[in-house]
Amino acid sequence: MPEMNRRWTLAARPHGMPKESDFAFGEAPIPPVGDGHVLVRVLFLSFDPTQRGWLEDRPSYLPPVQLGEVMRAVGVAEVVESKHPGFARGDLVQGMFGWQDYALIPGALLGAKLRAGVPPTWSLGVLGVTGLTAYFGMLDLGKPKAGESVVVSGAAGATGSVAGQIAKLQGAHVVGIAGGPAKCAWLTKEAHFDAAIDYKHEDVAARLRELCPKGIDVYFDNVGGEILDAVLGQIAQRARIVLCGSISNYNEVTPPPGPRNLRNLVAQRGRMEGFIILDYVARFGEGVAKLSEWVRSGAIVHLEDVQHGLENAPRTLLRLFTGANTGKQLLEL
Amino acid sequence: MPEMNRRWTLAARPHGMPKESDFAFGEAPIPPVGDGHVLVRVLFLSFDPTQRGWLEDRPSYLPPVQLGEVMRAVGVAEVVESKHPGFARGDLVQGMFGWQDYALIPGALLGAKLRAGVPPTWSLGVLGVTGLTAYFGMLDLGKPKAGESVVVSGAAGATGSVAGQIAKLQGAHVVGIAGGPAKCAWLTKEAHFDAAIDYKHEDVAARLRELCPKGIDVYFDNVGGEILDAVLGQIAQRARIVLCGSISNYNEVTPPPGPRNLRNLVAQRGRMEGFIILDYVARFGEGVAKLSEWVRSGAIVHLEDVQHGLENAPRTLLRLFTGANTGKQLLEL
Repeated sequence: MPEMNRRWTLAARPHGMPKESDFAFGEAPIPPVGDGHVLVRVLFLSFDPTQRGWLEDRPSYLPPVQLGEVMRAVGVAEVVESKHPGFARGDLVQGMFGWQDYALIPGALLGAKLRAGVPPTWSLGVLGVTGLTAYFGMLDLGKPKAGESVVVSGAAGATGSVAGQIAKLQGAHVVGIAGGPAKCAWLTKEAHFDAAIDYKHEDVAARLRELCPKGIDVYFDNVGGEILDAVLGQIAQRARIVLCGSISNYNEVTPPPGPRNLRNLVAQRGRMEGFIILDYVARFGEGVAKLSEWVRSGAIVHLEDVQHGLENAPRTLLRLFTGANTGKQLLEL
Repeated sequence: MPEMNRRWTLAARPHGMPKESDFAFGEAPIPPVGDGHVLVRVLFLSFDPTQRGWLEDRPSYLPPVQLGEVMRAVGVAEVVESKHPGFARGDLVQGMFGWQDYALIPGALLGAKLRAGVPPTWSLGVLGVTGLTAYFGMLDLGKPKAGESVVVSGAAGATGSVAGQIAKLQGAHVVGIAGGPAKCAWLTKEAHFDAAIDYKHEDVAARLRELCPKGIDVYFDNVGGEILDAVLGQIAQRARIVLCGSISNYNEVTPPPGPRNLRNLVAQRGRMEGFIILDYVARFGEGVAKLSEWVRSGAIVHLEDVQHGLENAPRTLLRLFTGANTGKQLLEL
């Protein structure tokens, strides 16, 4: 049995872009496994833009990570020792394990065991919270109809790429916005998008006018900022704007001003709505079943960007904010 | 029969705040009344913030008023001559008559005859499009529930004052935001609001924290700008923000930046939605019936600010933007 646990704790609240020194790498003894508890060895950690928000000392949909606490993260792990009747040594499980080699948690807080026949990392990505965010955000809030124009930002990211493909499966005309020609080429050549806009090298507003001449019916927003403003300037009547995230400003010390074109929501009777995937837990089964079917048939493709080694956890988080990743950002321990 | 018609036409598109010289006062002969047409003498004109948008040369929910055209406005009028079977000399009617003494329009475009026993101006205000905007905006989009906190800006205006009282009738805790102590006193002493914030002399964000300690569930927005931002900073989970108008920026040459706190919509699963009352025409009967009942019983009070003389039309429009009016802004011809 292991005795010591390597782990990253929160050392300082990031001011702007997180730095490696905002986290402290250390070791702590692994306590004995109490009744009802399970000790797991973490295999993969999920990296998600929303983790940046957990570092801020303000009320949100989850309490902030406290200074000195292990950095919160979802992961997949293998059960090492179980004193809970639902789990046995060797089971693969998903849960909120954090940036550490081992996690000791009540069995009641563990997710279901991973299904056989599916790569375990998929349960963190396309068949996990990431894919489900795309699924419920696009279908429940965006509600794209055949022939409508759908725009997705952060389109080469784990959520955006799935969101766009789901809209495509509804018969929509789907335009992705991503950074750089490689990501854009992947969107149109592999990921079934009708068109892609490279926001780093193209005039987003001008390209949106070209690609959505009748206006934008649905916008799945992962980035906020200027791109949201450009979209708002070109919404169609009864447009639905799904606010999934706003990664462009997560590292701003003061939130930047919002979109100038917000008032277009009035003339166009538009709706802008935020959501948190945790509210959909009761419907996860439905979403996973549908996503599994689409992934199996090839209707949805997805990529994983796997980094290696717990010591690289802070650097892996930063990849999300520099746009280094295409697809789901993971760390293999 | 009258031969000449005094009228205000659009002389120049306003750049920022409209000036009297953006309109031209002149006379034109009244053409003969053709088959199916009705000649009316305008009695009252309605002044509404949305008229500012009609002066901009950009696509919106109605086409822009063209240079040289009579300034568009809703009014009530008396039929002078009718060649339409539905109307007779002396009937009181409502319609889009414009800033002029007489209007010649197809009977098919006239609204219903005004009901007897109700002051004709009410059909422009509390029992007209203004009250209906409050009714459908608050009930269909805001959906306030008993015990919820509802905030209304432009609360001493014609729409805001009715919107707040409708929320109060649903059992909500209603806070109005208005400019100056007189308007605020009217809100709490006469118009059934639980509290009022004087945005000209008080710290809106601090007062909202005091008055809505559990967060804001519904916000009926007539003003946009900084007040919208302050509200977004304090929304409760599942908040509904009804975008009715944004008078604070109608006269800005370049739309100002939007709210910094927009991303709160994600963490709080908030919804922000714009609407145009013309989409509710099919349900106007329901709204007028309910509003009439509430006005009759005293559950809803309303004020009218009546100016006089067609020559004062541009000055009367400006009263909306300087906040001079309390309640419905009208001009009696």
